[in-house]
Amino acid sequence: MIVELITTGSELLLGQIVNTNAAWMAQKLNEIGFDVCYQTTVGDNRARMEETVRHALTRANIIITSGGLGPTRGDITKEVCADVFGRALSLNEECAERLKENFRRREKEMTENNLRQAMIPEGAKILVNHAGTAPGIVLEEGDKVIINLPGPPHEMKDMFTRSVVPYLAEKFGLDAVIISRVLDTYGIGESQLETKIQDLILAQKNPTLALLCRPTGNIIRITAKAKTRSEAESLIAPVESEIRSRVSDFIYAVDDEPMEEIVGKLLKEKRLTIAAAESCTGGLFTSRLTDVAGASEYVKGSIVSYTLAVKEKALGVKKSTLDEHGAVSEQAAREMAEGARSAMSSDIAVAITGNAGPSPSEGKPIGLVYVAVAGERGTVCEKNILSGKRAQIKFSASQSAMNMVRRYLLGEI
Amino acid sequence: MIVELITTGSELLLGQIVNTNAAWMAQKLNEIGFDVCYQTTVGDNRARMEETVRHALTRANIIITSGGLGPTRGDITKEVCADVFGRALSLNEECAERLKENFRRREKEMTENNLRQAMIPEGAKILVNHAGTAPGIVLEEGDKVIINLPGPPHEMKDMFTRSVVPYLAEKFGLDAVIISRVLDTYGIGESQLETKIQDLILAQKNPTLALLCRPTGNIIRITAKAKTRSEAESLIAPVESEIRSRVSDFIYAVDDEPMEEIVGKLLKEKRLTIAAAESCTGGLFTSRLTDVAGASEYVKGSIVSYTLAVKEKALGVKKSTLDEHGAVSEQAAREMAEGARSAMSSDIAVAITGNAGPSPSEGKPIGLVYVAVAGERGTVCEKNILSGKRAQIKFSASQSAMNMVRRYLLGEI
Repeated sequence: MIVELITTGSELLLGQIVNTNAAWMAQKLNEIGFDVCYQTTVGDNRARMEETVRHALTRANIIITSGGLGPTRGDITKEVCADVFGRALSLNEECAERLKENFRRREKEMTENNLRQAMIPEGAKILVNHAGTAPGIVLEEGDKVIINLPGPPHEMKDMFTRSVVPYLAEKFGLDAVIISRVLDTYGIGESQLETKIQDLILAQKNPTLALLCRPTGNIIRITAKAKTRSEAESLIAPVESEIRSRVSDFIYAVDDEPMEEIVGKLLKEKRLTIAAAESCTGGLFTSRLTDVAGASEYVKGSIVSYTLAVKEKALGVKKSTLDEHGAVSEQAAREMAEGARSAMSSDIAVAITGNAGPSPSEGKPIGLVYVAVAGERGTVCEKNILSGKRAQIKFSASQSAMNMVRRYLLGEI
Repeated sequence: MIVELITTGSELLLGQIVNTNAAWMAQKLNEIGFDVCYQTTVGDNRARMEETVRHALTRANIIITSGGLGPTRGDITKEVCADVFGRALSLNEECAERLKENFRRREKEMTENNLRQAMIPEGAKILVNHAGTAPGIVLEEGDKVIINLPGPPHEMKDMFTRSVVPYLAEKFGLDAVIISRVLDTYGIGESQLETKIQDLILAQKNPTLALLCRPTGNIIRITAKAKTRSEAESLIAPVESEIRSRVSDFIYAVDDEPMEEIVGKLLKEKRLTIAAAESCTGGLFTSRLTDVAGASEYVKGSIVSYTLAVKEKALGVKKSTLDEHGAVSEQAAREMAEGARSAMSSDIAVAITGNAGPSPSEGKPIGLVYVAVAGERGTVCEKNILSGKRAQIKFSASQSAMNMVRRYLLGEI
């Protein structure tokens, strides 16, 4: 069963609002095993909307629209879809009564145009709107189905859950569930990652494999379709472990658990505290750590040293180090980490120093970032060359530092 | 000129990510007078993508795609569009060189599949990617144009602004312009704001007025349509000054200039340096300050004091103050600001201490945040009661602190 979602409304076309309805419906439909193959957005223009619906019927079995069921002249979705199936509209007494009742309850006066919402195409199934006034519509013609849902997200979602899912289940049967498992990696490029699992990607059927770039790192998504959730999970399991056997070093999370939460959990488990010395990240690393509720259990603090003076005074970095190697150097990073550790008497301390751009400094290239982690087992330092604009470099540097802490805590470095 | 946007990728179809690219492009295209009449999303399926592109060509003059330009086998947008126009792809030496250089710079190993990004359809215009590796493509055929842009938002936006807008302007000319003027406010509620300008909102025609809530504060958008930019601007000017005459105290920026840039400019102008002492914001305030290129000219550093010990040791907050008033108090905020100022010998210092949640601490309610600014003119402190979840409270606290610095620098407090 191929589904096309058609979202209508000029605010979508003008980009004044982001299309969250399409994403939400797509996710729900996929969860119950329906393939959404197309999403189309069109404005409240009769000719264009009609052409869009007619074309959708040539490539999809189930068409679900959202938007354009309101009381104004601009709301034409229901009429257009009825036309396409050659159905006339007439006033539905039940709907009219429900409308009037709704207005009585809210002590609002009902204007004539509101009755447009009670105009129903012949032969339509009516979906009661429990969150608003516009009823939803189901039109069946041969093996094709058009479902009209309201545009306001809370109305659409309520109607979708209450009425659309049961309808689809009854009419088409829910013969499958689709579930995804995401493996979050850090420190390996997309192309390198693909090379390592290319054979699996080429051989993919069910489950399918997808590689995606995220600011947090590249992710591998394993998606399986099966009769039951547990069946789907058991299809995913062997593929996941095969992938893990090849790139385990780079996998830091599953299903997009944020790095800061993973680091936080490790620190809690091991009852360790952390401090930081940040230069190019300007506080971002510690801010992300403290995004996690309960971070005060393990975060002692951070010194953002944006000047040489602060590096010397607050972190005790040797003047000679800064003179000989510069602030963006392995030596400086190591001394910053050790300085932060003793200044805030934490078990572990991280230092991040680099050049976030926009221009080279100390003759050091943009994106060059040193990260050092100091702890009981001594101090380790890694060199990163990060790409992107200032904000991306800052974020990548913070992510890279978190990943180093994670590996340090796990004894991997 | 009718534009159709085609966004590709299974993560969009599956609803795993919301389609922000389509909204962003639609907005930009509308601003320069192009009508986006259709937005279509299709997966990385060759047959379906090709059908979608062919159909788009029957109803639009300009087709802009985003996504599917990566190095992997799943990335097929460029090939599909080239096929539709019957163009062969071949390796473009310049693109290949740029790719290799990019990898060299990042000291990353380049795998073979990366070269797929340097395969260019014959007769294509190449759009250089300044934010990533995949070049953009422009294909012209008769009066039809297909433009392929990368999927990662920061790459797409950079390329759209640098290359697509100038290209469209030159090729099609811009017959009407729609421009918006945004007035950014802080410290005034939406309803209060509406009350102050209600008569203008009711009387609106061209320009139109819109009030929108943003995490950064409420904004007023004035949008005018005219033949020329200067005409549109002269429609906006009188409305803007009328609004300013009513709510000038709350307007801190125009056209969404970030607060951190405004504060940075003021500090530069006045040749003053700044330091911070952050508790509940965990470094976010200083991180935002340092998002601005050249921040090192005026940012000395910050001490993120997440524990009482650090507040005492690094900032010299009196133990008696913490005992009597607690860390979330006006007294602590003042001492933190003054401590940061002397510790990092800055002209101005800010302190932020509060409870970001999720649970009350020291019996202080969630959202209670004290901000103090210390400088030559003495120390001022303000109490904020902020709402929302932890992340929102952190951001609002940082925004409120920036606004206080701005007002302090302007002599308003």
